[in-house]
Amino acid sequence: MTYIGVIGSSECDQETEKNAYEVGRQIALKEAILICGGYGGVMNSAAKGAKDNGGLTVGILSGETRKGASPYLDISLPTDMGQARNAIIAASSDSLIAIGGEFGTLSEIGLALKMGKKVIGINTWEVLKKNTICSDIIYVKTPFEAVDLATNHKG
Amino acid sequence: MTYIGVIGSSECDQETEKNAYEVGRQIALKEAILICGGYGGVMNSAAKGAKDNGGLTVGILSGETRKGASPYLDISLPTDMGQARNAIIAASSDSLIAIGGEFGTLSEIGLALKMGKKVIGINTWEVLKKNTICSDIIYVKTPFEAVDLATNHKG
Amino acid sequence: MTYIGVIGSSECDQETEKNAYEVGRQIALKEAILICGGYGGVMNSAAKGAKDNGGLTVGILSGETRKGASPYLDISLPTDMGQARNAIIAASSDSLIAIGGEFGTLSEIGLALKMGKKVIGINTWEVLKKNTICSDIIYVKTPFEAVDLATNHKG
Amino acid sequence: MTYIGVIGSSECDQETEKNAYEVGRQIALKEAILICGGYGGVMNSAAKGAKDNGGLTVGILSGETRKGASPYLDISLPTDMGQARNAIIAASSDSLIAIGGEFGTLSEIGLALKMGKKVIGINTWEVLKKNTICSDIIYVKTPFEAVDLATNHKG
Repeated sequence: MTYIGVIGSSECDQETEKNAYEVGRQIALKEAILICGGYGGVMNSAAKGAKDNGGLTVGILSGETRKGASPYLDISLPTDMGQARNAIIAASSDSLIAIGGEFGTLSEIGLALKMGKKVIGINTWEVLKKNTICSDIIYVKTPFEAVDLATNHKG
Repeated sequence: MTYIGVIGSSECDQETEKNAYEVGRQIALKEAILICGGYGGVMNSAAKGAKDNGGLTVGILSGETRKGASPYLDISLPTDMGQARNAIIAASSDSLIAIGGEFGTLSEIGLALKMGKKVIGINTWEVLKKNTICSDIIYVKTPFEAVDLATNHKG
Repeated sequence: MTYIGVIGSSECDQETEKNAYEVGRQIALKEAILICGGYGGVMNSAAKGAKDNGGLTVGILSGETRKGASPYLDISLPTDMGQARNAIIAASSDSLIAIGGEFGTLSEIGLALKMGKKVIGINTWEVLKKNTICSDIIYVKTPFEAVDLATNHKG
Repeated sequence: MTYIGVIGSSECDQETEKNAYEVGRQIALKEAILICGGYGGVMNSAAKGAKDNGGLTVGILSGETRKGASPYLDISLPTDMGQARNAIIAASSDSLIAIGGEFGTLSEIGLALKMGKKVIGINTWEVLKKNTICSDIIYVKTPFEAVDLATNHKG
């Protein structure tokens, strides 16, 4: 079984939401399990895209309860661990797809790369060291490419 | 949706395994989600009991990878958090059923009670303060009673 | 350097507070580092006992900020991890002294024993399995005995 | 009391080490507490710089034990939480100084910004969104400037 993390903000614009929905849909079509932070925006849209297409969705929540969780989760897990839950999202995912995103997403990209996970980005953070863009994040334009890479372990 | 945590050791005797299997089966019959620590013994038997009866099972692993995880999990989540993952099991469960168990189980009982969760026990730890047994753990004899209480929020 | 965890409730009676203060004092006299949960009651009294006698005190807080922390801490560390911080208290301590205590303390006793740490108790939880008191918790009557055992690795 | 996090890799070049040492020294001169990840490279050099100048140093370790910890720590805390300990470093620090750094440092920058902490960088990651460098990281050239900004809450 393949676990794909989808990371991004709890608030986002329509194009980002549309991409997240389509990423979720593609993950379901590949019969992979979708892992996310479990709240709104990118997380909710990706979960909806997966659920609308028969996928299995998991939300790893930062809060103490299920309050505010997306209704499109099969499994929602309150951790009461604040941002430390970002490390669980990274550790639980075989590969991760970042869509847009703010600082929480940036932290998840860093954690995932530190753990040696494959990270794929759509309109997300670019990170540079000594004026050179980090080549460990694989940037793609479409949800199809993102999920194809995420599920292709030879990628 | 109701989430029931099943806690107990990764190694246990046959009677404990049998009880764990039956608890898992009853959880599936109640259409509740089974949360556990995801490894062997009580965790594996409970997950098998649920899976054999169409249930949904989640293992929250202490390790960095899925190595050693029960094959009867629909969702397995490596946290790489060691025993701190016990707090996630407690936080994610609406109520918990302790079956036998060693020190890890004792910690989960304490964490769950601290979080105000209902804790039901079958042949598990008894805890005393000033020579009085703590009445917050509800002791039962059978898996049926345990799951009935766990899913009955008025219990 | 020896690290001794002192665990107990954030609210307690006067005798428990007095014991906690004296445990803190003895820890300082042994030149060990005191680790605690960083809030009131047992934690605050132990920290005060250590600080009044030149000790070094560390509070590992469950909250997001330092709000509510004991003023007798040299180092206070907000973890924003809720009860999962109990696992850090156990992992960071070479041995632990439980004084009185409620469910949080019970969880810390379980976590510490699971990690193979020495646990010493003064008027704290007794835990039984199959009607036999667990002999892994060492019960003592006085703060002096507790700290003496905690700092004596041959104990 | 001010807590300053110093983040960077466990292996680094000489210039980075020199900067880390000087950052540690400046933190000690400001009588702030140094928080770090507790291992080698930037962490060890910063801790040494602080200790050589009378500072107080804390290492929040990812491991289960104190193995591999810098000898320049007054307090070392094994968390056994892997990379989730990065969230504790961010939560415990009033402001953070990133020096060089790899993916772990990137994650700490993201976590700290998410938590609303001030982040100051010396030769560290630059992060861009839509081709615009994120202005929430304050880049400076010298350890003196970094610590001056970190301890100046009006900065």
